[in-house]
Amino acid sequence: MAKKPSIPKGTRDFNPEQVAKRNYIFNTIRGAFETYGFQPIETPSFENSETLMGKYGDEGDRLIFKILNSGDFLSKANEQAYSQKDSNKITTSISEKALRYDLTVPFARYVVQHQNDIEFPFKRYQIQPVWRADRPQKGRFREFYQCDADVVGSKSLWQEVEFIQLYDTVFSALKLEGVTIKINNRKILSGIAEVIGASDKLIDFTVALDKLDKIGEEKVKEEMLSKGILEEGILKLQPLFNLSGTFESQIDGLKSILNTSEAGKKGIEELTFINNAIAELGLSSAKLQLDVTLARGLNYYTGAIFEVSAPEKVKMGSIGGGGRYDDLTSIFGMPNMSGVGISFGLDRIYLVLEELGLFPKTVNKNVEVLFINFGEKEALFSLKAIKQLRLKGVNAELYPDAAKMKKQMNHANKRAIPFVVLVGEQEISSNTYTLKNMGSGEQNKVSLQELIGYIK
Amino acid sequence: MAKKPSIPKGTRDFNPEQVAKRNYIFNTIRGAFETYGFQPIETPSFENSETLMGKYGDEGDRLIFKILNSGDFLSKANEQAYSQKDSNKITTSISEKALRYDLTVPFARYVVQHQNDIEFPFKRYQIQPVWRADRPQKGRFREFYQCDADVVGSKSLWQEVEFIQLYDTVFSALKLEGVTIKINNRKILSGIAEVIGASDKLIDFTVALDKLDKIGEEKVKEEMLSKGILEEGILKLQPLFNLSGTFESQIDGLKSILNTSEAGKKGIEELTFINNAIAELGLSSAKLQLDVTLARGLNYYTGAIFEVSAPEKVKMGSIGGGGRYDDLTSIFGMPNMSGVGISFGLDRIYLVLEELGLFPKTVNKNVEVLFINFGEKEALFSLKAIKQLRLKGVNAELYPDAAKMKKQMNHANKRAIPFVVLVGEQEISSNTYTLKNMGSGEQNKVSLQELIGYIK
Repeated sequence: MAKKPSIPKGTRDFNPEQVAKRNYIFNTIRGAFETYGFQPIETPSFENSETLMGKYGDEGDRLIFKILNSGDFLSKANEQAYSQKDSNKITTSISEKALRYDLTVPFARYVVQHQNDIEFPFKRYQIQPVWRADRPQKGRFREFYQCDADVVGSKSLWQEVEFIQLYDTVFSALKLEGVTIKINNRKILSGIAEVIGASDKLIDFTVALDKLDKIGEEKVKEEMLSKGILEEGILKLQPLFNLSGTFESQIDGLKSILNTSEAGKKGIEELTFINNAIAELGLSSAKLQLDVTLARGLNYYTGAIFEVSAPEKVKMGSIGGGGRYDDLTSIFGMPNMSGVGISFGLDRIYLVLEELGLFPKTVNKNVEVLFINFGEKEALFSLKAIKQLRLKGVNAELYPDAAKMKKQMNHANKRAIPFVVLVGEQEISSNTYTLKNMGSGEQNKVSLQELIGYIK
Repeated sequence: MAKKPSIPKGTRDFNPEQVAKRNYIFNTIRGAFETYGFQPIETPSFENSETLMGKYGDEGDRLIFKILNSGDFLSKANEQAYSQKDSNKITTSISEKALRYDLTVPFARYVVQHQNDIEFPFKRYQIQPVWRADRPQKGRFREFYQCDADVVGSKSLWQEVEFIQLYDTVFSALKLEGVTIKINNRKILSGIAEVIGASDKLIDFTVALDKLDKIGEEKVKEEMLSKGILEEGILKLQPLFNLSGTFESQIDGLKSILNTSEAGKKGIEELTFINNAIAELGLSSAKLQLDVTLARGLNYYTGAIFEVSAPEKVKMGSIGGGGRYDDLTSIFGMPNMSGVGISFGLDRIYLVLEELGLFPKTVNKNVEVLFINFGEKEALFSLKAIKQLRLKGVNAELYPDAAKMKKQMNHANKRAIPFVVLVGEQEISSNTYTLKNMGSGEQNKVSLQELIGYIK
C-alpha cells in the first residue's frame, strides 16, 4: 500500500500540543468534580446492543455504531432479513455489540447492575469518549469526549444549586469569564402548556418556543398555530414573549401566567429556591439566567434544565448542559431513582479557549533541556546528568545521534526547547556543563548542582 | 426490559477505587515518559480497515473488531460473497472501519500521514485503549489499555539504554522492586539460526527455543528436529543450553557460538554496548538480564528485544515489552524509518501492585469532609463553608437531604469519609462548626479558618 494513509471522516489525530491543551481542560474539570465530591467511574467502550438500542429514539438508533460479530457471523443471520436483503432487520442478528453513544445510559446501566455495591446518593463523574455516526461538520465529530457529573438517589434541590456552582468553578478556573448559565424547569413548560390547553402538544409547543431567538415572535406563533395550538391559547402566552429583566422579574411574569397550574407553581418554587441560594452563595465569574425557552433533552428531563453559553463575543453554541431526570434507571428495571447531572462540551470549550487565547503558555509539557551529543564518551557523561535532572522532575533528553552540531541545534530550535547543554572533552575533564539559553543566546559553564537549579 | 443489565464478556466496569488505582499507574508512567522527553499523541479509536488489516497476521485480522457500515449496508455488499454466504469475503464490503488493535500500527500511520509536521527523531508516547476479539481469560480482556513510548528516526543505541532506564524509573516509582528487564537481540537469533544452518527456519527455531523454560532442553530439541532442523545443527547449539551466570559470561558463551556469523557478532556488539552503559549509569531497583530465548514479536523486531518480568514471588507473565523495528513505516510507504519502543501492561501491573499491597493508601481521592444536613438554613450556612474548602482544594460535600442524622452518619461511615461537620442553630449563631473526626470520634467546635486548617 503506497497510498498516503488517512483516518475515517469525523475522527481526529491529536498532536502533542493538542493533547496537552485537551488535558488542561480535562484536568481542570476533573479537579473541580473531585472537590465537589464526585467520584470517577469508567464503563466499557462497547455495550450489549440491547443496552443502547431504543434509548435515544429512532434517530439515535440509526447513529449508533454497531460492531460486527466475529467469526462466521452470516451463519447466524436472520434468514428472512437475509433473503429480503433488509439491512435494518438483519442488524441484531449479525451485531450484538455497539459503541457507547453517550455516558448517561451506560451510567444508568452501571447503577442498576451494581446497585448492591453502591452507597446512595451516588455522585459519579465520567470522562470518556462517545461515538456517533453523525454527518461530520465544523465542531461535530464522530468520536468525541463527554465530561459528565451526575447524582442519583436524591431529589434535593441543593444539587441543582451545586451544579450551578460547579459550572462557575470550572469556567472560572479556565479563566473563561462572561459565561451564562441558563436555567429552566420542565414543570414551567408543562404548566404553560396546561394553561393554554395544549398539554398533549408539549413537545410541539416547546420546539416552537425554542426558536424564539432565531425566528422571532410572529413565526413562533405561526408554527404553534400550524401544530394545532388554538389561537386563544396563544393569546394567553403573550406575557411570555415579553418576559425580560432580572431573574426575579421574569419569575413575577411567570407567576401571572401560571397561577392556575400546580405544575407551573411547583416549577416557580423550585427556580426561586435555586436562585435565592445562588444569590446567597455568589458566583465568581458566570451569571445565572432564567430562560423559559430552554427545552433541551425534554424527552427525559423532568425538573431543572441547564444550558451554558459561551461569552457573547464568541460565536459558539452551548458549551455545557444538563438537567434532572426522575426516572432514568427504570429503563433497566430500577424505578424511583431521581437523578440530576451536567455535562461539559470539551471540543467547544477547546475552540472557545483557543479563540480567546486563554490556554496558559506553560500548558505544553515540552522538553526543557536537550543535551547535544558529541560522541560516545560525552553522551555517557551527559546521561549521568540527565538522570539527575529527571529525578528532579525536569524533562530532559539527549540527542540520540552524534550528528553535526548545527543539525542538533536546529532540532532544539524547531522543538522550541528552551535550554541546550554542551558537553565536550573540556567539560568532562572539569566536571562541568556548558548551558545555553536558547532564547537569550547566553552561555554559562556550570556545575551539575547549578545546572539543576538553573533549569528548575 | 426488566432483565438485569450486563456488559459484553471481556469488558469491565471500573468503580471509583479501581479508576483511582489505574490512574495512579497511568500518572506514574506518564510522568516518567515526560521526564524522558516523550510527548503525547492520540489517535482515533477506529481506523480505516485497510490501515489495520494484514498488519498482524491472519490471527490478528480475525481478532480485529470490525464496525458495521451505517445505513443500508447490504445494498453495497459484495454480491458473490452474499450469494455464497461467505462471512469472511463479505466483510470488507459491509465494514470500512475497525477498532484499534494496538498502538504501534496507528502510530506508524500517524508518522507517515503527518511526516511533514514532525521534527525527527520523534519521541512519542500514547496511552489509549485497544480492542481484541480474543477469548477472555484471567488477565486477558477484549478492551484494555496500552502505554507505549517509541522513538522513530534514529538508530542510536542510546535509546535502548534509555528505555531500560525508563522501565527502571517507572517500576521504582511504583515501589515495585525486584523487576527483571530481559533483553535479547534479533541479530543473535539470526546468527544462531545461520550457524546451525537453519536460517530459513528462524521462526520455527525461535518458537521452540522460547519454550526452554517451560518444557526443558530435551523437548525443545525434539521440537526442533520435528521442524526439520538437522541434528548436527542442534549439536552446535549445546553451549546455548548451558548459558548462565552474569550478562558478561553469557556474552562470552555467545561469542564462542557466533564467531562465524556477521549478524551474530553485530548482535553481541550491540548487547555489550547497552550492558556497559547501564553498568555505568546504574539502575535503582530493576535488574538487567540477557535472555537468548526471548523472541517476542519476532515478526517485526530487527534489533533489541525487551521483556519485563514481575518479581519472582508473584506469578505473572510479562508486565512490559518492546524492541527495535527497522522498517515499521514502510507498510505505509515510508521506508528507512528506524524505530524502537516499549510498552507497559497496565492490567498486569495493576494485579501485581494489588497482590503485593503496593498501592498508596491515599490513592483514592475520596471526599474528605461531609457536612450533615439539618435543614434549609443550616445547609445554606454549610455551603458557604464548603465553597471556601473547595477553593482550597479540599474535597467536600453536603448531604443533599435533611435525612435522619443516623442515616447521614452511616453514609459517611460507609464511604469512609474521615471528617463530618455538624451545623445546627447554635453553630450558626456563634459562626462556628462542630468538626467530628470519624476515626477517633473526637469532636471540636472550630472557626472556619480552623476548619480549613484542620482538614487540609
